[in-house]
Amino acid sequence: MNYKIDNLQYCNWSREVFKFNREACLDAVHVTIAYHEDYDELLLEIKKWDQLFFENSDLIFLGKSFEDIKKAKLENKTAIFFGFQNCSPIEDNIDLVDEVHRLGCRFMQLTYNNQSLLATGCYEKIDSGVTNFGKEVIREMNRVGIVIDMSHSAEKSTLDAIEFSQKPIAITHANPFFWHPAKRNKSNDLLKSLSQSGGILGLSLYPHHLKDNSNCTLESFCEMVAKTADIMDVKNIGIGSDLCLNQPDSVVEWMRNGTWSKSKNFGEGSKKRPGFPRQPSWFTDARGFSNLEIGLKKVGFSEIETNGILGNNWYNFYKLI
Amino acid sequence: MNYKIDNLQYCNWSREVFKFNREACLDAVHVTIAYHEDYDELLLEIKKWDQLFFENSDLIFLGKSFEDIKKAKLENKTAIFFGFQNCSPIEDNIDLVDEVHRLGCRFMQLTYNNQSLLATGCYEKIDSGVTNFGKEVIREMNRVGIVIDMSHSAEKSTLDAIEFSQKPIAITHANPFFWHPAKRNKSNDLLKSLSQSGGILGLSLYPHHLKDNSNCTLESFCEMVAKTADIMDVKNIGIGSDLCLNQPDSVVEWMRNGTWSKSKNFGEGSKKRPGFPRQPSWFTDARGFSNLEIGLKKVGFSEIETNGILGNNWYNFYKLI
Repeated sequence: MNYKIDNLQYCNWSREVFKFNREACLDAVHVTIAYHEDYDELLLEIKKWDQLFFENSDLIFLGKSFEDIKKAKLENKTAIFFGFQNCSPIEDNIDLVDEVHRLGCRFMQLTYNNQSLLATGCYEKIDSGVTNFGKEVIREMNRVGIVIDMSHSAEKSTLDAIEFSQKPIAITHANPFFWHPAKRNKSNDLLKSLSQSGGILGLSLYPHHLKDNSNCTLESFCEMVAKTADIMDVKNIGIGSDLCLNQPDSVVEWMRNGTWSKSKNFGEGSKKRPGFPRQPSWFTDARGFSNLEIGLKKVGFSEIETNGILGNNWYNFYKLI
Repeated sequence: MNYKIDNLQYCNWSREVFKFNREACLDAVHVTIAYHEDYDELLLEIKKWDQLFFENSDLIFLGKSFEDIKKAKLENKTAIFFGFQNCSPIEDNIDLVDEVHRLGCRFMQLTYNNQSLLATGCYEKIDSGVTNFGKEVIREMNRVGIVIDMSHSAEKSTLDAIEFSQKPIAITHANPFFWHPAKRNKSNDLLKSLSQSGGILGLSLYPHHLKDNSNCTLESFCEMVAKTADIMDVKNIGIGSDLCLNQPDSVVEWMRNGTWSKSKNFGEGSKKRPGFPRQPSWFTDARGFSNLEIGLKKVGFSEIETNGILGNNWYNFYKLI
């Protein structure tokens, strides 16, 4: 059995988007439901998702384990897995780790660009690694079954997380630095450590993570995947598109600034280009998975390897949560 | 005019404690009203203080500026200045800095032992300094008039705060490391930088910060003050006793652990001695200020210098807030 999984989307959710995901035959999607929200604000987000599940029960349902991915395939639906791009929902309270797991959370980033109570983000000048509280939280995430996601974290913090975590960790959405030197992309050393520890990388289709940005070609992307497979075991590579379909620009401004600054930060963008970037023509929504399939085979990946990258590798990773 | 100021107390507040402070002729006391509280929890603490002010209006009132210290002296009362030992009340929201100032906050530590969103605490292994959010918050604290207090912070973070702050900062309660090598005490280099930037050190009477702990002698303490005055300008030295009068041991457990750990941390204490330590016999409450006066003169401080250390230096610092 082959599974198709996009392990990071943050779309402006609607029936249209869920239909695109079904057309792309996605059996599972990991969706971001928190960037800066505290616990109470998280509960409001989950209420919105309750409504989405109710209105689109023919297309989606809340996934809680790898078994739900099998179920989704059988029922021609997409299992939705909740994740946070920041640790803000657990506030400063270790007991909230279990609470958010109970609410469906299966992935949590220890940081989102800036320093958090747990670790250092990739936009800070100095990276002090996983903190005292961070060590406690990693242990608790391991215990309850929430994946440690270091997509927006700095290098030492990520290496610390790999070391301290008893279970493999994930970088759900990022690309290798050698291909495109963005702050969010990852070094070869880090990717090697990730792979050797059984962790997984979800390759991103977000233009700021791509060589030539919105003009990145499918060929260039797939050649990058081939080179990444020289560094990492191909079984530890998947897709986390970081697709932000139909989001207004006000959302990316909020993602970058939250409530932490009086001045405006442009993050991966710039004053001239503050908004969401245009997606490459071959991946404007999840239906671009079919282009990826063609492109990956063209650069030499076998049928099994291609299916692995497009979903089976994530499926196997979900078994470990 | 001479003023007496204890610039850090965290007592189990009662009429008895306020009376001791009056007997000690304290014109001002900086009191801790938050360790781990978020903004909503802070509001509850302030409600408790509203009641204390109402019930003890013959002894205390809420101080908001140095003018209130003069007023307190004239009225034979003690001006109470609010402070936080952690940045938890501003959560991740820069706009709350102005809010807490409006509520009376005049001192805020950027960290309490562990890493915060703003800087690194003295109990972390690695100190990455003031964070992106921290820089924004320092600017805002300068603007609204809240003193940056680095008593529980790590060294680089403290040096960063001195550098980034437009106004002098404070270490409200700590001692020099050369005298007693506790994690909470400060290096000569740091004390020099603090003094040169116009910042002030409040010397602590908390046994874990004292040489020989509860058995520390008045002579030893005052000799330490004399040596500290060789490193720092004596005008930048005051008292911040860290007096925790009448507190049950459950409070120190909560101070150390908050909600961040599943296991129990003993902080400056130990498994054998988990509770509050016994105060030295010559400083069991604020009335010990009279012993300090005798002791400081005995080690050679002049009348003016002694009065400076016991309050006038803090008074002058308050003029800068």
